[in-house]
Amino acid sequence: MLTLEYCRQLDAVDPLAGMKQQFALPDNTIYLDGNSLGARPKSASARAQAVVEQEWQQDLISSWNKNQWWNLPLNIGNKVAQVVGAKEGEVAITDTTSTNLFKVLATALRIQSEASSERKIIIAEREAFPTDLYIIQGMSEWLNQGYQLQLISGPEELQAALNEQVAAVVLSHVNYRTGYLWPMQDTTAAIHAHGGLVIWDLCHSIGAVDIDLNGADADFAIGCTYKYLNGGPGAPAMVWVPAKHVNRCAQPLSGWWGHAQPFEMATDYAPAAGIRRYLSGTQPITSLALVECGIDVHLQADMPKIRAKSLAMTDLFIALVEQECANHPLEMITPREHAVRGSHVSLKHEHGFAIIQALIARGVIGDYREPEVMRFGITPLYLSFEDVWHAVQHLKDILDNKTWDTPEFHRRGEVT
Amino acid sequence: MLTLEYCRQLDAVDPLAGMKQQFALPDNTIYLDGNSLGARPKSASARAQAVVEQEWQQDLISSWNKNQWWNLPLNIGNKVAQVVGAKEGEVAITDTTSTNLFKVLATALRIQSEASSERKIIIAEREAFPTDLYIIQGMSEWLNQGYQLQLISGPEELQAALNEQVAAVVLSHVNYRTGYLWPMQDTTAAIHAHGGLVIWDLCHSIGAVDIDLNGADADFAIGCTYKYLNGGPGAPAMVWVPAKHVNRCAQPLSGWWGHAQPFEMATDYAPAAGIRRYLSGTQPITSLALVECGIDVHLQADMPKIRAKSLAMTDLFIALVEQECANHPLEMITPREHAVRGSHVSLKHEHGFAIIQALIARGVIGDYREPEVMRFGITPLYLSFEDVWHAVQHLKDILDNKTWDTPEFHRRGEVT
Repeated sequence: MLTLEYCRQLDAVDPLAGMKQQFALPDNTIYLDGNSLGARPKSASARAQAVVEQEWQQDLISSWNKNQWWNLPLNIGNKVAQVVGAKEGEVAITDTTSTNLFKVLATALRIQSEASSERKIIIAEREAFPTDLYIIQGMSEWLNQGYQLQLISGPEELQAALNEQVAAVVLSHVNYRTGYLWPMQDTTAAIHAHGGLVIWDLCHSIGAVDIDLNGADADFAIGCTYKYLNGGPGAPAMVWVPAKHVNRCAQPLSGWWGHAQPFEMATDYAPAAGIRRYLSGTQPITSLALVECGIDVHLQADMPKIRAKSLAMTDLFIALVEQECANHPLEMITPREHAVRGSHVSLKHEHGFAIIQALIARGVIGDYREPEVMRFGITPLYLSFEDVWHAVQHLKDILDNKTWDTPEFHRRGEVT
Repeated sequence: MLTLEYCRQLDAVDPLAGMKQQFALPDNTIYLDGNSLGARPKSASARAQAVVEQEWQQDLISSWNKNQWWNLPLNIGNKVAQVVGAKEGEVAITDTTSTNLFKVLATALRIQSEASSERKIIIAEREAFPTDLYIIQGMSEWLNQGYQLQLISGPEELQAALNEQVAAVVLSHVNYRTGYLWPMQDTTAAIHAHGGLVIWDLCHSIGAVDIDLNGADADFAIGCTYKYLNGGPGAPAMVWVPAKHVNRCAQPLSGWWGHAQPFEMATDYAPAAGIRRYLSGTQPITSLALVECGIDVHLQADMPKIRAKSLAMTDLFIALVEQECANHPLEMITPREHAVRGSHVSLKHEHGFAIIQALIARGVIGDYREPEVMRFGITPLYLSFEDVWHAVQHLKDILDNKTWDTPEFHRRGEVT
């Protein structure tokens, strides 16, 4: 029998317990949606003020040099590189995940087309976060060169789909709905065995799961900085291209920030060496600067400790749900096995939307994804084991007493 | 003979003189680079704090609905629409100018290719801000469908180049170096007469020049919000697509924010109706929110008054340079005629780089662009006629005494 006391004992020996002090969270809230929008690092407030009141107001255009605005994408990229197994100079923070996918997919297709005209299939997951599918569709249609998107679910279907016609495979390292975690190294090897290139979407794994992109010999990666990295709402995204590919071709969004000599104002595009060529236009500096606050906090912790706490907390959450809510029709769609589980747990319930609203009304913030999926994100840097206990107690009470069953909790906003 | 007293008289009757109170500028500075990075509206400080400390920290994911994060691109777009002659629902604030050019150019080429396979020429200006040329090159190379970039300079070369092979023409409404202003209506008509489509890059005109996109029957427009609109460093850019084109096809950066039903998480992309389909990935909310501070100040002024003051100030600047610096080899590359002049004045001098550094050392901030061009931007909302007087006096003193001729003023940063 798991108890509150037991949860408190886990907190007492948690080596990351002190990290919570670096975040500003609302009172009386258990925030289980850091997998959607990470909490605010306390340092972000002063940083935003410095960017607005000193760098913009006082330093004005001199900030491009003096405050390193021009180099923020690569400077912050070098910090993010440390949590994904990338080397210095391989990561940029820029644009959006969607736009960065467009760039690296274009590169992957270009590399493949130079070797063979036979590779016209792009594999992605039926259950991928849709923007990945939409970008693949947009590029395929726009190129009009016979590329076809083939959808698969899970490793067996992937293995069956791999052949010499496959150009690229786009995979979510952790699935946004189920929390399924692809084994990066083995999967990459399987794709390479058929001559394919792999693009890893790290949105739901970066900052929560050990990642070793170079160790896995991966080809490309993209991902969010505003979830487990706590970079701020909609903050610019990451893009990783390793040395083996980065200088092989330009990418099509070839704006001036990616030029080898941007201030020579030459009429012809010449890509910069390295990851800088994956930059395009002028970046949103205020949002970009705040990404550094998030990654700086993160780098004070130890990634294996973060992963260990994440697994311990998701284990606890699952066990508590089974212990406390066994008499309710909850279906867990997240894998139990550690090797294939990310850092959120998803439960299906016919009235999932209303249950989530009822939880939010009590300060337990999870979120809902169609169809019927309640997501509970575990963020080791600012959640306690006791938080998990109380969250499940609220869930139990809402289910036992059907407090979700009111019109108020069925009302939908524009963003669900 | 123009005098300081005369300049002060102009200030005394300036209907926009009070607007300066809404900006936070450094002391002892005459800021003539608002054409590169607009000054900070005072309101931006509290807005940044609210986004970080209330919307992000306290409201967390509920901000997507509660604080309208999801709708910021179109809500702010509707305000920006008012200064470019666009209708409600035609403008979005999103991504970068480079990325937005990629989207609208793709649309223009798609529309043309559906009507005829003969139109393979994209015309742009030899003197365009290079990112426009680079994006055209990137797209042409990636499409690999025979598109060719043809460079022209000025209206005569444009007219000579127009024929039935031209698909699209990309023009800077105001040239970033010379300040030349294209007559939008006549130029659009000339391009249409040959069946071409025009994309107007408004980066150096939006907020400084009267613009009537619909009145000119233009096809597409893109532009910066961080210059004359004072939206903050690298703030998301604008994109305008009028009703006649907007629903004709999807654009290739078809991310989830442009989907008709983004929260249904469908596997197939279906573009939203209207300008929303020009959105792609999740936007950098902190930077985006600050754009509203800039446009809100702008909308308190009257665009014709802004244009009239801009012309009066650039006239004054030119006349003062001629009166005070006549014995120095300055070549004005900005047109004198009001009808074809934007809101900055550019002077060439062999030692332009060092002269600009000497001016900056005195608090007169202009900027430098290769080759040899000193740019002086006139921002009617926060500059006075007296500022112009003092700026020219500093220029005269620096030239008369060769104070630019020191190693310090020849040292170049990474960003020039």
